[in-house]
Amino acid sequence: MSHNTFGHLFRVTTFGESHGVAIGCVVDGCPPLIPLTEADIQRDLDRRRPGQSRFTTQRQEPDRVKILSGVMAHPETAMQVTTGTPIGLLIENTDQRSKDYSDIKDKFRPGHADFTYEAKYGLRDYRGGGRSSARETAMRVAAGAIARKILPEVTVRGALVQIGPHRIDRDKWDWEETGKNPFFCPDKDKAAFFEEYLDGIRKSGSSIGAVLEIVAEGVPAGLGAPIYAKLDADLAAAFMSINAVKGVEIGAGFAAAELSGEENSDEMRMGNQGAKFLSNQAGGILGGISTGQPVVARFAVKPTSSILNPRRTVDRKGGETDILTRGRHDPCVGIRAVPVGEAMMACVLADHFLRHRGQVGR
Amino acid sequence: MSHNTFGHLFRVTTFGESHGVAIGCVVDGCPPLIPLTEADIQRDLDRRRPGQSRFTTQRQEPDRVKILSGVMAHPETAMQVTTGTPIGLLIENTDQRSKDYSDIKDKFRPGHADFTYEAKYGLRDYRGGGRSSARETAMRVAAGAIARKILPEVTVRGALVQIGPHRIDRDKWDWEETGKNPFFCPDKDKAAFFEEYLDGIRKSGSSIGAVLEIVAEGVPAGLGAPIYAKLDADLAAAFMSINAVKGVEIGAGFAAAELSGEENSDEMRMGNQGAKFLSNQAGGILGGISTGQPVVARFAVKPTSSILNPRRTVDRKGGETDILTRGRHDPCVGIRAVPVGEAMMACVLADHFLRHRGQVGR
Amino acid sequence: MSHNTFGHLFRVTTFGESHGVAIGCVVDGCPPLIPLTEADIQRDLDRRRPGQSRFTTQRQEPDRVKILSGVMAHPETAMQVTTGTPIGLLIENTDQRSKDYSDIKDKFRPGHADFTYEAKYGLRDYRGGGRSSARETAMRVAAGAIARKILPEVTVRGALVQIGPHRIDRDKWDWEETGKNPFFCPDKDKAAFFEEYLDGIRKSGSSIGAVLEIVAEGVPAGLGAPIYAKLDADLAAAFMSINAVKGVEIGAGFAAAELSGEENSDEMRMGNQGAKFLSNQAGGILGGISTGQPVVARFAVKPTSSILNPRRTVDRKGGETDILTRGRHDPCVGIRAVPVGEAMMACVLADHFLRHRGQVGR
Amino acid sequence: MSHNTFGHLFRVTTFGESHGVAIGCVVDGCPPLIPLTEADIQRDLDRRRPGQSRFTTQRQEPDRVKILSGVMAHPETAMQVTTGTPIGLLIENTDQRSKDYSDIKDKFRPGHADFTYEAKYGLRDYRGGGRSSARETAMRVAAGAIARKILPEVTVRGALVQIGPHRIDRDKWDWEETGKNPFFCPDKDKAAFFEEYLDGIRKSGSSIGAVLEIVAEGVPAGLGAPIYAKLDADLAAAFMSINAVKGVEIGAGFAAAELSGEENSDEMRMGNQGAKFLSNQAGGILGGISTGQPVVARFAVKPTSSILNPRRTVDRKGGETDILTRGRHDPCVGIRAVPVGEAMMACVLADHFLRHRGQVGR
Repeated sequence: MSHNTFGHLFRVTTFGESHGVAIGCVVDGCPPLIPLTEADIQRDLDRRRPGQSRFTTQRQEPDRVKILSGVMAHPETAMQVTTGTPIGLLIENTDQRSKDYSDIKDKFRPGHADFTYEAKYGLRDYRGGGRSSARETAMRVAAGAIARKILPEVTVRGALVQIGPHRIDRDKWDWEETGKNPFFCPDKDKAAFFEEYLDGIRKSGSSIGAVLEIVAEGVPAGLGAPIYAKLDADLAAAFMSINAVKGVEIGAGFAAAELSGEENSDEMRMGNQGAKFLSNQAGGILGGISTGQPVVARFAVKPTSSILNPRRTVDRKGGETDILTRGRHDPCVGIRAVPVGEAMMACVLADHFLRHRGQVGR
Repeated sequence: MSHNTFGHLFRVTTFGESHGVAIGCVVDGCPPLIPLTEADIQRDLDRRRPGQSRFTTQRQEPDRVKILSGVMAHPETAMQVTTGTPIGLLIENTDQRSKDYSDIKDKFRPGHADFTYEAKYGLRDYRGGGRSSARETAMRVAAGAIARKILPEVTVRGALVQIGPHRIDRDKWDWEETGKNPFFCPDKDKAAFFEEYLDGIRKSGSSIGAVLEIVAEGVPAGLGAPIYAKLDADLAAAFMSINAVKGVEIGAGFAAAELSGEENSDEMRMGNQGAKFLSNQAGGILGGISTGQPVVARFAVKPTSSILNPRRTVDRKGGETDILTRGRHDPCVGIRAVPVGEAMMACVLADHFLRHRGQVGR
Repeated sequence: MSHNTFGHLFRVTTFGESHGVAIGCVVDGCPPLIPLTEADIQRDLDRRRPGQSRFTTQRQEPDRVKILSGVMAHPETAMQVTTGTPIGLLIENTDQRSKDYSDIKDKFRPGHADFTYEAKYGLRDYRGGGRSSARETAMRVAAGAIARKILPEVTVRGALVQIGPHRIDRDKWDWEETGKNPFFCPDKDKAAFFEEYLDGIRKSGSSIGAVLEIVAEGVPAGLGAPIYAKLDADLAAAFMSINAVKGVEIGAGFAAAELSGEENSDEMRMGNQGAKFLSNQAGGILGGISTGQPVVARFAVKPTSSILNPRRTVDRKGGETDILTRGRHDPCVGIRAVPVGEAMMACVLADHFLRHRGQVGR
Repeated sequence: MSHNTFGHLFRVTTFGESHGVAIGCVVDGCPPLIPLTEADIQRDLDRRRPGQSRFTTQRQEPDRVKILSGVMAHPETAMQVTTGTPIGLLIENTDQRSKDYSDIKDKFRPGHADFTYEAKYGLRDYRGGGRSSARETAMRVAAGAIARKILPEVTVRGALVQIGPHRIDRDKWDWEETGKNPFFCPDKDKAAFFEEYLDGIRKSGSSIGAVLEIVAEGVPAGLGAPIYAKLDADLAAAFMSINAVKGVEIGAGFAAAELSGEENSDEMRMGNQGAKFLSNQAGGILGGISTGQPVVARFAVKPTSSILNPRRTVDRKGGETDILTRGRHDPCVGIRAVPVGEAMMACVLADHFLRHRGQVGR
């Protein structure tokens, strides 16, 4: 990962600010001859799109993606396929009306990247967070939709497993449920609870954090590589690069600190399709390389920094002041991170699949 | 991070297996004219060296590092300094006596990378874990010693903050203590407790996990960059690439999921040296860029996989069998990871310092 | 250089096909606070634009560049400046009318990348050469315009020094002349000759090659680095990556093979501003590092492959056939490569300037 | 290529100075299960070794390479094979006796990198050229020996085709001859002439340049990729990074500037194994991708800079002075570059082979 690019053979470069002309990305290194249409990408984008419930921000943008390059009608089948050359993607910003930013233009919003961008670059794009806006993640989702097509046998799904101190009941996990509530929550009962819980937080003008879990099933054994190309190291970077993420764990994760060697070791036996593991504390990764079991990762998202209650801060001139967000806000930014987390998992796996095939040839 | 290399301007490439001829690394991109001797590196290596207490493995190797290139006596001062060219480092393996590996040669040890290396490459170096051995981390420590010299105003220190379910009392944190007990534990009382606790685990032939905290003080604001070169994303990859690490968090980390927006926001006021933060939930990083506050990261290390109690597994031929480690073992591999975590923090900061200076010029 | 990206700290990623929706690029790693408008970029693009004389292809496109991101009005001066975040650039293809490609769709045009794209990817975009079209070089010129702004004290200029067997008279070199004839030719007399010469070639339906020279003045000593980041190695790759280039040389270049050690060594004496060289056979680079003298490079461009005279070839089905280009053609593609060569020189120098500043700090 | 590393999937990192403890390299990303012994590498090293005739420098070193990691005895065949992990290679410098460097320590030798290293880093290793010594190329040859094993069906051979103004007669080309004379010259008669010619130059204390040609046969069509991963762009960088190289060309190279479109186009017809080209002006590369024909490249090497005749220069303190080399010298450094050029070709092809397999899967 460097600058605004990640991946080695499957490479994603994004650009664009929240309230600029457009956001976009270049997906480079995609294998040729993969069927790909704008609709394939739009489907995933629509899952991420804000404003779909009262729990996510009300930015009303269609987020209509355009493929600018890298595909053509196959000369025989006429089906649109990838050509192996870079795929340029663009989403025009339609919501870039000149809003009044005078309130935040010179103030550093606590929890946001205002102070740090200014410290680094000597200025910052104050319009909607500029480059640090979560809007950038739309392009990750778009890239992820392409990555999924490289790995048709792999299923990448995400779920919200905790809001505030409230964890789901893992015994009630039902993937079907994640598509039925606005929280991507796999526990039907907890989803009902979250509805009420988040309404309270929203009305109080506050916000709350969350934990998400991303699971990839069907990942072949052998992806990832020693030592600095470990699959889990790349996943950790990928998830940590998502806005507001403060922690990442694989398999048992931080709970592994409390386990004994006996509890933590995933024992093996022979099954119908060869060696199998009797548990998955490892989260599908040993020594940085996939085991063939589901790859399981979780990440923690901090509470929305833009809240309706005033916080103390300073301004660019060195004056002390207060700041608060006006109007509607997003009580839990973690919710919308589920499709983003899935996309990052898909991109990392696609990249490692190509890298492994390059080195090992199968 | 790619293959066995990490970093962009300050680049570290390591090689070598646990029981091969030698392990080594190449540190490339180091600024010129920095005083550097083997003793500077040896000091850090000695802190990581196993066999220093009954709580770490008894491999008896001096781990004597040799600088092969990249330094010379300064023509005026005669002090040995870096030249700006790659620094080759080598540690010969003196403990590579031909041990009897017949017991593990064909068996996949649960929790180890045996199965995955075999799945990926079609064979694995079974001698002491080969490339997946924690021995590789000696070279990270060596590189970290050089990284520290690039950032003389930054202090990077690590501490063990949890073993099993037992957390230190943060009110008793005393950095001095970390040098006085075999656990790098900053809580004197808890260190005493750990001594007894780990003795019990060791005697039972079992093992236990741990959590470590790495803190960098004196980091200037502005290091790190959007979007895929975020400082926390690079730290997450760096720590997750350490053997046995299963989780990484920055600042409040996973606890941020339970915080409200008010609790999580680090408010600001003017101090004697300009803007200051009133708390550090962010762990010194906002939007992927350092704030000027201490950079605080933690990572979880799983329990040692090599234990004296038998575990079920399979062998390379598809037979079901049991395996156990004989002789002495290491009840908590997390302990030795403290100097390694410090080194990774130092390397990531040095790289970002150079990258920032390249782009921004200060 | 990897895939469709080049540069390390100053990174350029391009995408787009000749007859797709648009071509574009992402310029990443640009320092902040540099004044930059679309007009700055358009100026260089206009120099490259085809259809400006009867000697370059008649594609009539305004090639109007749009900046999509990475700039904003400076909060104090209101001047538009770079923000340090990625600069997205886009040029819409207005000439993408559905032409009749039935003649070339299934035939491999000799000298073009038709056969090799098909061999690599299993299909190729036959519309105007797809990704292999020289149209891609417009984005290099755009990126080069930004690179020039990073190095205001460096002047990068290019000239055509040979067409076919006809070399310019170097004693008549006048940079002013390069802007006064359609060939970027610094020798006024030779330019007049080329006009007639190329008219003859054009009328015969044939084409001819050329040699270009790119000179960068004001380059500080010290850019470039051992061993695989040599300034000349990066320049060689940069120029060789331009369409139709078959050779690159630095300073004396291939002529150095015929020189004696005495003739080739650039002797030194003290001048007003310190050490100076008495000649520049080295072309401003020794050991891969700039000497402070002008950096001088030349590259050879092969004759246009699309000619009006039939050539033998095969088609996708394995049939033997003939092919020729109909209508107007471009008798010497080398002409238009001058602004492209300048841009690549500027980009490589900007990248090395930032890398040097990163490592060495000045 | 970055710093002291080149390649993407097949990566080579070198370190070491001419008169330091040792030189070495790390070859990373090599496929597993490839038979590899020190003898395989030594064979190629011995071809490069100086002191084998009176025409190359008399440094008497065995250049004995040691494999430090990345190989093991195959568990079934007991044959030593690669494991897929990084291969560490080391050559100890045995000729590092403390010579008297007082004559050159403070003077900038014209044609050498003395002035530029000092300008960049503020100091330079004056002992035998330090990092800029051609000794570094021994590690390229070692890496190339491994690269060859990845591509057993490809034959990479090099030849010297010009010394001074004297070109070989291409009609007399006989690859067998390259192994029979000290010049790697494929023209027996010209080799005899060179013997006398170079004796004269050596005795006069002067030196002369050369041109080398590297040919790879058996390269499959499809290696290389648009736009900045073109096979010829990577080759250009690879050759230009070799010491003393000032020009690189592919196929017709600079001569293409004088060709007409008809002459330059390689026409196609159907052959027994499918489409075939009727000529190879392209040097086996079209659009940056291999055609399946032999890949043909040439590069020019400048005359040895160390000569016995005094040249004017300056010293580190700003004094004007003269310098000359004492004792034996190397009249034509180009000769020894043949095995180095072959190695670079092999490394670039191996890397592109793995990258192509990664993206396209065949």
